[in-house]
Amino acid sequence: MIAEKYKQMLGQKSVIRELSEYATERAKQIGAENIFDYSLGNPSVPVPQEFTDQLVKLASSDNPMAVHGYSPSLGITSVREKVAASLSRRFGLNYKKEHIFMTSGAAGALAHALRSVVAAGDEVLTFAPFFPEYTPYVHGLDAELKVVPPNTETFQINFDAFEEMLSPKVSAVLINTPNNPSGAVYSTETIKKLASILTQKQEEFGHDIYLISDEPYREIVFNHVDAPYVATYYANTLTCYSFSKSLSLPGERIGYVAVNPNCPDAELIVNMCGQISRGIGHNCPPSIIQLAVAEVIDQTSDLSVYEKNKDILYDGLTKLGFSCVKPGGTFYIFPKALEEDAVAFSKRALKYDLILVPADSFGCPGYFRMAYCIPTEKVERSLAAFEKLAEDYKQ
Amino acid sequence: MIAEKYKQMLGQKSVIRELSEYATERAKQIGAENIFDYSLGNPSVPVPQEFTDQLVKLASSDNPMAVHGYSPSLGITSVREKVAASLSRRFGLNYKKEHIFMTSGAAGALAHALRSVVAAGDEVLTFAPFFPEYTPYVHGLDAELKVVPPNTETFQINFDAFEEMLSPKVSAVLINTPNNPSGAVYSTETIKKLASILTQKQEEFGHDIYLISDEPYREIVFNHVDAPYVATYYANTLTCYSFSKSLSLPGERIGYVAVNPNCPDAELIVNMCGQISRGIGHNCPPSIIQLAVAEVIDQTSDLSVYEKNKDILYDGLTKLGFSCVKPGGTFYIFPKALEEDAVAFSKRALKYDLILVPADSFGCPGYFRMAYCIPTEKVERSLAAFEKLAEDYKQ
Ligand SMILES: Cc1ncc(COP(=O)(O)O)c(C=O)c1O
Ligand SMILES: Cc1ncc(COP(=O)(O)O)c(C=O)c1O
Repeated sequence: MIAEKYKQMLGQKSVIRELSEYATERAKQIGAENIFDYSLGNPSVPVPQEFTDQLVKLASSDNPMAVHGYSPSLGITSVREKVAASLSRRFGLNYKKEHIFMTSGAAGALAHALRSVVAAGDEVLTFAPFFPEYTPYVHGLDAELKVVPPNTETFQINFDAFEEMLSPKVSAVLINTPNNPSGAVYSTETIKKLASILTQKQEEFGHDIYLISDEPYREIVFNHVDAPYVATYYANTLTCYSFSKSLSLPGERIGYVAVNPNCPDAELIVNMCGQISRGIGHNCPPSIIQLAVAEVIDQTSDLSVYEKNKDILYDGLTKLGFSCVKPGGTFYIFPKALEEDAVAFSKRALKYDLILVPADSFGCPGYFRMAYCIPTEKVERSLAAFEKLAEDYKQ
Repeated sequence: MIAEKYKQMLGQKSVIRELSEYATERAKQIGAENIFDYSLGNPSVPVPQEFTDQLVKLASSDNPMAVHGYSPSLGITSVREKVAASLSRRFGLNYKKEHIFMTSGAAGALAHALRSVVAAGDEVLTFAPFFPEYTPYVHGLDAELKVVPPNTETFQINFDAFEEMLSPKVSAVLINTPNNPSGAVYSTETIKKLASILTQKQEEFGHDIYLISDEPYREIVFNHVDAPYVATYYANTLTCYSFSKSLSLPGERIGYVAVNPNCPDAELIVNMCGQISRGIGHNCPPSIIQLAVAEVIDQTSDLSVYEKNKDILYDGLTKLGFSCVKPGGTFYIFPKALEEDAVAFSKRALKYDLILVPADSFGCPGYFRMAYCIPTEKVERSLAAFEKLAEDYKQ
């Protein structure tokens, strides 16, 4: 009795996966240096040396049991304390360890946050363009994910559509800023307006509406961009963080849920995450990685290359006639395809060895995503390929 | 709208947790060396030096992206190959990487294995005494866990009760050998008989019945004990393994599901595990730990201390009049309490600073579990406390 629902998921081939397999094959023919692979969000700058040093120190510890032993179910206490202290210091809310639940990356954080405040049959709202993995997270708990259409002028929130869709069945609103795939960063104005609508609707409906803020790109914000800390503006906020991108260690699976200390049920939610964890076999992120990350809690990799790449691409692509909103952060850019069908466009781009992801699965057909966490020299070289691609569309 | 089902779980306090908190408090008063804490299954022998060396080498790699990057969703290919090769070499089945799904420990393995072959509404059978976390794993997928009563003579399988309970609603049977908490190891005779019943019932019912074999203690088997490799005897076997106990790194969260190559749907099940993973935010065990474990795939910590501790306790306790089945493996022993109510018994044991876990939550009231993964010197000293406890019951 193979579980049919997962079997069916197998049928839905991932476009990103297919493209990346194509890229690997093609690289064998023409050399990896000649493929402009913009498909994957795998960070390309090394982890900070200090992280490596701490990891080596922990691995060589003369008390291996203290390093490799079971973590308490909410995370290692000293680690939760350091996370809370860092958040409090940086963002001014009074986080304590009781508000922190350590997770396997943002994926683990989202899976727990959603399960803690969304019941089967509820609705969760998110905003196009959105990270496609939200769909399995929400379906996994038999709730419905509804996608608010995009504001393609700015990729801020389309508030008219949002207010229309915000029904009493909605128990959580899921945002992602800085955004994958658009690169947009929600402004203070956007967050304030969102918070005010949610506050008003909570009252009107007579039940809580939780704001789940997915923030793996929090540390990748470009110069002079207004990037407010979301939880500041809304008490019922569950912040889902990951060190994957800020420290360049997506394979090590480390992040957390931080529940706003002003959320009346904050401690209850954190404790519930521990219970949720039991059923899904999560049982904490790796101990040694928890301990190592806590030692470098306020550090990041050298993220400056992402802004440099963004500048080159934004300037280069707009000059070539592509239309796109200037990214405020992340390592993604999200231009409009040169024909209506972005899948066909991405296929044509392959002729020039450009691996571009059509945005249909992000809920935004007609656009494509580029993950520019690749070497700058390659970004520069890729512009000639884009020029040929643009030419192709002029004929 | 806090999810009620997890909120309710919070009410059910864990006895083990309470005992271990008591032990910590008491240690502050009389010194940790005077507490005989047999409550926790946290391995006490260090990881092999070779594991540490590999971990340090990987952490110091001059290609940190290769070490810390995202793992493919089924696990790192070279790691899956090494796991498959090791299983094939040791147990004679023809495992390939296509049969291996890397997980966060046995907990992750069980959560995936169960979801892959059990649908909502199905029944899963397991055998008392059993690991209490099976309950949340099975409830998490809205199936029912039914517990076959124990054979307290030997802690092998009570086949009469099993056959009676094996209805067409059963899609999976979950066993754990070597067993936590009984220490029993299922004999070849037991496994053969189990396999033969399952084979016959599959035919009778006209659908598959999967055998999920939870084997975190596979490497902890004592001298001259018959410890067959379960999958050898039944094609539809999903082996759930963890390196937590064999390498003493329970905090690092690493294990796998190995689907028997003779299972007709083996590759499908492994691919489904990758899909299941998306919904529960599992996304692979940590990359660096996958890579390190693969380098020491056939090694274990020095596990000999567990057999030594077992001998001391088994001899000592039986001499004192305790009745217990001799453990064949693990680091647990499972004696009968000296009164019917094992909870009351465990409370009385606290007077002598003995931390013993009553087995009610293992589905076996009247017994208690001791985790003897503690220093031998302490095991020896604890016998005097047991003597006093036994005396107490004679008055
Ligand atoms: C928007 C968004 N959310 C969540 C995740 C998952 O993050 P992690 O891999 O750290 O679990 C990603 C990863 O790319 C992401 O882009
Ligand atoms: C019988 C049994 N199954 C599964 C597990 C979970 O193992 P892990 O911590 O490696 O996930 C344990 C842990 O103690 C166990 O005793």
